[in-house]
Amino acid sequence: MSDRVPVVESPSRRAFLFQGTTAALSLPVVATVLASCDKTVAAAAGPASVKAPEPTPRQRADSMDAMHERGIKAFPAKTAGRGNALLAPRLENGVKVFDLTADEIKWEVEPGRHVDAMAFNGMVPGPMIRVREGDRVRVRLTNRMNQSTAVHFHGLELPNDQDGVPFITQPPVKPGESFEYHFTVPNAGSHMYHSHHNSAEQVSKGLLGAFIVEPKAANPAHRADVDALMILNDGVHGYTLNGKSFPATEPLVAKLGQTVRIRFMNEGMMIHPMHLHGMHMTVIAKDGWDQPAPWQCDTLNIAPGERWDVLVKANNPGTWAFHCHILQHAESMTGMFGMVTALIVTA
Amino acid sequence: MSDRVPVVESPSRRAFLFQGTTAALSLPVVATVLASCDKTVAAAAGPASVKAPEPTPRQRADSMDAMHERGIKAFPAKTAGRGNALLAPRLENGVKVFDLTADEIKWEVEPGRHVDAMAFNGMVPGPMIRVREGDRVRVRLTNRMNQSTAVHFHGLELPNDQDGVPFITQPPVKPGESFEYHFTVPNAGSHMYHSHHNSAEQVSKGLLGAFIVEPKAANPAHRADVDALMILNDGVHGYTLNGKSFPATEPLVAKLGQTVRIRFMNEGMMIHPMHLHGMHMTVIAKDGWDQPAPWQCDTLNIAPGERWDVLVKANNPGTWAFHCHILQHAESMTGMFGMVTALIVTA
Amino acid sequence: MSDRVPVVESPSRRAFLFQGTTAALSLPVVATVLASCDKTVAAAAGPASVKAPEPTPRQRADSMDAMHERGIKAFPAKTAGRGNALLAPRLENGVKVFDLTADEIKWEVEPGRHVDAMAFNGMVPGPMIRVREGDRVRVRLTNRMNQSTAVHFHGLELPNDQDGVPFITQPPVKPGESFEYHFTVPNAGSHMYHSHHNSAEQVSKGLLGAFIVEPKAANPAHRADVDALMILNDGVHGYTLNGKSFPATEPLVAKLGQTVRIRFMNEGMMIHPMHLHGMHMTVIAKDGWDQPAPWQCDTLNIAPGERWDVLVKANNPGTWAFHCHILQHAESMTGMFGMVTALIVTA
Repeated sequence: MSDRVPVVESPSRRAFLFQGTTAALSLPVVATVLASCDKTVAAAAGPASVKAPEPTPRQRADSMDAMHERGIKAFPAKTAGRGNALLAPRLENGVKVFDLTADEIKWEVEPGRHVDAMAFNGMVPGPMIRVREGDRVRVRLTNRMNQSTAVHFHGLELPNDQDGVPFITQPPVKPGESFEYHFTVPNAGSHMYHSHHNSAEQVSKGLLGAFIVEPKAANPAHRADVDALMILNDGVHGYTLNGKSFPATEPLVAKLGQTVRIRFMNEGMMIHPMHLHGMHMTVIAKDGWDQPAPWQCDTLNIAPGERWDVLVKANNPGTWAFHCHILQHAESMTGMFGMVTALIVTA
Repeated sequence: MSDRVPVVESPSRRAFLFQGTTAALSLPVVATVLASCDKTVAAAAGPASVKAPEPTPRQRADSMDAMHERGIKAFPAKTAGRGNALLAPRLENGVKVFDLTADEIKWEVEPGRHVDAMAFNGMVPGPMIRVREGDRVRVRLTNRMNQSTAVHFHGLELPNDQDGVPFITQPPVKPGESFEYHFTVPNAGSHMYHSHHNSAEQVSKGLLGAFIVEPKAANPAHRADVDALMILNDGVHGYTLNGKSFPATEPLVAKLGQTVRIRFMNEGMMIHPMHLHGMHMTVIAKDGWDQPAPWQCDTLNIAPGERWDVLVKANNPGTWAFHCHILQHAESMTGMFGMVTALIVTA
Repeated sequence: MSDRVPVVESPSRRAFLFQGTTAALSLPVVATVLASCDKTVAAAAGPASVKAPEPTPRQRADSMDAMHERGIKAFPAKTAGRGNALLAPRLENGVKVFDLTADEIKWEVEPGRHVDAMAFNGMVPGPMIRVREGDRVRVRLTNRMNQSTAVHFHGLELPNDQDGVPFITQPPVKPGESFEYHFTVPNAGSHMYHSHHNSAEQVSKGLLGAFIVEPKAANPAHRADVDALMILNDGVHGYTLNGKSFPATEPLVAKLGQTVRIRFMNEGMMIHPMHLHGMHMTVIAKDGWDQPAPWQCDTLNIAPGERWDVLVKANNPGTWAFHCHILQHAESMTGMFGMVTALIVTA
């Protein structure tokens, strides 16, 4: 009995206990723990007949804050795998050949959370394809999954038989089979490639990537020092930016005075109004097409299938929160999660 | 026992069995069937003590693909009833008189699926009203439903007593009663008429239609060869385009080189980012008002109550998928459904 | 038994009974009552062995209409508390000092419905802060809640240490503590301040307000006679405009010919396409930044975190419905509720 008194009377030890209890638990479990923390502590303090006092409001606040702090201190957290790696083409008789292999893999969305994924070349999002208007391209798709699939080049105005819609423009690519798409790159802009077969499952699980087409003549007003990609998804993997959830998301980094181009792409099923702190965004293109005139905002609503290109003048030094403003996609009582990252402007 | 061996060894017969099983079922049922198909086949193959082998991944893929193919091959599927028929006015002393009768009917949304609907003139969407700025108009509403109702002309800037909001601008029109709206058509554009009484139910069930006002002076930049309407809804009837779900949706058809004007109208409760394959859309008007400058996209996010007018230059021959990019509104593991149609560009 | 006959035969007395039954009930309860009203009346009429006749369709319609009428006649309904009161600063050595105290309170969202709220200075939304570009400002936050908190000035491009994000730019402000933000107001426009700690709960419960920055040089094209604020929220308090649900929402009022500026701010988790009847809106700014060219609409889709400024030329006299066009946010079978108000244009 003797050590029960200090437990009751020492807030600092109580706080330590709270942290000790929660440290070993994954984030989603913590909410339940927090909700029942009175009982936990009471039970830990001795037999049921001895009642531990309620934690004070301050102790509860400290406990919640500690969880919030832990998430932010963990950022950017290490996880296995990284999406959007630039895919180098093979050159065959002047044609850029890209190999995409669809496979079923495990993917680590945040530390310790491994999910069933469908992926091109073993990563979510799939590798970034980057070409120029007028390039001759071949994309060789190999299907190593247990489902058929097909690739649609979302935004590219291709000949109909290269459009990737099973039973409308081609047969599905069966498990174990391959299919080759070949075309001359038609229109510039920030486009996407993704499955167009059983797509509500396959795209949700990661069968998607960026297809960026440089224009023949670059618009000097769009010159940027940093070219960043932010692919949004919200399916069975949870709320993700470039295939990862906070705190495993990757920050954007720029030097003071640099211009950052961000290419937003929504591969999910919900809108996501992305909010940048500290600086505004200048919107220059929609779905790869220049807007008639650039316009400014700090919160950009991005709907499924849309791509928006923005420029940010990194003129405000510091680490800036950058997140979906549907708050349930970004923060719970246990701290930030999901669609949260940061823009770090270094002096 | 003798015929069990071929079942086990012949993939083609297995595939046939799968198709035979699923052909008689409605689409939503098929998902369950597919999920349980191992057991089904096992059971079909003989007594419980004899275990049939698991289908191979390829057999499962073939089974899924067959369902997808069936849906697409059925498009455009025949159903009873067609919405948006042009409503011819009676002319009375220079006034165009339109008769609208609200009734409770059964409506075939896709083959075999008949739903409880509320409809103007027996169709969903109700008949298209098409007038010109400055026209004198009377709309005679007769209510044959079991609920009161009223018609709001969404987008038209009418005198207050013609605005159609029960208890604010008029009494509700009771079952069996009639009400007459009369006005001089004020502002041009793609507008709508719909119930403004118990509207979450009545509009969801179909009490809506297009009210298109031609401008006095047509904008030559908006000239189109084909003038198409796409009214979105997402209530108790499921995800619909012009009152029908895929494969019963109607394709848009244009000749190579023609210009298609599409008037999107969202009468539902959710956003729908409509994605056109193969060609881009040039956005010219919002809620009937010209945009300050046209802009391009391939995915247009349309919110409830909004109307967007776009032009498509039909310069890419073929049959092009055209669908909501919230993938759960367009495709399941059993194939495409809901908000899917096609733009067919004939050479 | 004798008085049971008139009950059966007199529709008007039946109608009265219906109204009598429903008058004492809160709106959400009424749906259930209406659904079961046959049984209620039957039970009221006598012992179970005597069966009252079904109400006629007309009686049911009258009953539904009466509920709709009651809601509209109650508008604008009185409730305790009013948000958005202009907060007068103290002047200290040329600095405008604003005091914000966060507290946990009860808030009356509509007559008789009191909810748990978190509020700045005892109101939801918190008091309106109104300053000018270049003003020197101090905001003193005192936390009287049982949770930690912090204030983020959403849209203002502040120095990093004034951005209000716990563990990124400052420690959380603990229960009982205070924190002072100080800055020179950087960019003009319609901005917001709100909690950025456990925000999905705290903002949802009301810890938010408008932060409006007048430009140094006013744009003469944006001159308005009435400057109105419409803050949208959709969390645990239900669907609200400026902290109240219909019929407790406050109408906007203008004289014929006046120009009304409306500053929409979405502090909720869902989009809300706000639809104004009778007149169109001219959109002039997004997130405090002027649009490159004004554009017109009657339904403006506002996403979480976004602010949109519009001008309305009040040239159409009358009382005009003004509501979210996601119909379930505005009307049920028992009448209008939630995100509904009116623009009243007086002659």
